[in-house]
Amino acid sequence: MASEPRLLTIEEVNRMDFQEFVERFASVFEHTPLAAACVWAHRPFQDVKLLHRAFCTFIRDLSPAMKEGVLRCYPDLAGRLAQQGALSDESTKEHKSAGLLDLTEQEQRELFALNVNYKRKFTYPFVICARENKKETIIRGITARLSNDGPVEVEVGIGEVCKIAGHRLSDIVADNSNPKL
Amino acid sequence: MASEPRLLTIEEVNRMDFQEFVERFASVFEHTPLAAACVWAHRPFQDVKLLHRAFCTFIRDLSPAMKEGVLRCYPDLAGRLAQQGALSDESTKEHKSAGLLDLTEQEQRELFALNVNYKRKFTYPFVICARENKKETIIRGITARLSNDGPVEVEVGIGEVCKIAGHRLSDIVADNSNPKL
Repeated sequence: MASEPRLLTIEEVNRMDFQEFVERFASVFEHTPLAAACVWAHRPFQDVKLLHRAFCTFIRDLSPAMKEGVLRCYPDLAGRLAQQGALSDESTKEHKSAGLLDLTEQEQRELFALNVNYKRKFTYPFVICARENKKETIIRGITARLSNDGPVEVEVGIGEVCKIAGHRLSDIVADNSNPKL
Repeated sequence: MASEPRLLTIEEVNRMDFQEFVERFASVFEHTPLAAACVWAHRPFQDVKLLHRAFCTFIRDLSPAMKEGVLRCYPDLAGRLAQQGALSDESTKEHKSAGLLDLTEQEQRELFALNVNYKRKFTYPFVICARENKKETIIRGITARLSNDGPVEVEVGIGEVCKIAGHRLSDIVADNSNPKL
C-alpha cells in the first residue's frame, strides 16, 4: 500500500471536476464508483460530515434489490481475496484493524463456515464495519445476524456500509466541521 | 492486454456464484460492477442476448440522475486516460477499433475541444459505441449531439452504453441463441 496522502480540504473537494471526484471517491462504497458519480452532482458540500450524508442518502434511496447489489460488491471477511492478498487497499486496512489478517486456523474455519451459511441465506456477503469491531465481535455478529429476516438484514448490512464509508471518507477529507454545531 | 480467454457457455455463466459473476461482468458497463451484482439475481439466462437484455433493463430502469452517474464512469474519448495508457482493457480495445489511438494532432485538438464543450453542457463525457464508428463519424456525432437537450441526450448516451455492453458481452459469452427464433 502506498503511504497515506495528505487529507484534502472540503474546498479542494468542491473544486474537483467529476472525473477527479469519481476517481478519488470510487471506493467509499466498495467497487461502486457510481455512487461518487451521482453524489458529485450535489456539490458543494459544507464539510466531510455532509459529504458522508450525501453518500449515505444515495445508498439509502436505492431499491432493496440495488442494496443487495451494493452488498454483493464487498468481499467475504477473511475470505479468498484476503488469503490471496487481493483485497482493495481500503479492505486490507480494515481487515488489519480488526485482526482478521491473523486468525488462527480454527477461527478461519469458523468464519468461513459462517460466511457460507450467511451467503446461502441472504445471497450477498456478511458486511460489518471492521474498524469498529474485533474478530470476536465479528464472529458473534455474523452468528446473530444469521437469524434476521431478509428485509431487516439488508438494512443492517447497508447501515454497516455507511459506517465503513464514514471511516473511508475520513481517510481522504479533513474534518473542518464546527464541533459546536 | 492478456490474450483473449475462451468464450464461456451460457450454462457456465448460469452456474457462477455472485462473486464470480460480479468479477467477470464488472465492466459490461464501465466501472459499474453494481450492474452485474444486480443482474446476477435474474439468472438463469437462456442465452447471451437475454443476458444483454437484463443488463440493459437494469440501466434503463435507473433514474435520470443515476443514468448521468453511469455516463460519468466512462472515460473521455481519446482523452487524458487514453494518452496515459490508463484506459480499461475494454476501452483500449474500443479506442483501437475506431482509430482513436492514432489521431493526428489536429484531430486530437478538435476532439479535446468538443469534449470540453460537451462536458460543460451535460456534466458527463460523450459516450459513443466506438466499435460501430470510426473517428470521422465520432467527431461528427459529438458535434451533432451537442445540440440535444439534456433529457434527450442522457437517453442517447445510455443507448450507446447498451450497444457497448453488447460487444463486451460477446467478448465473454458464446452466442448459442437460435437464429431462427
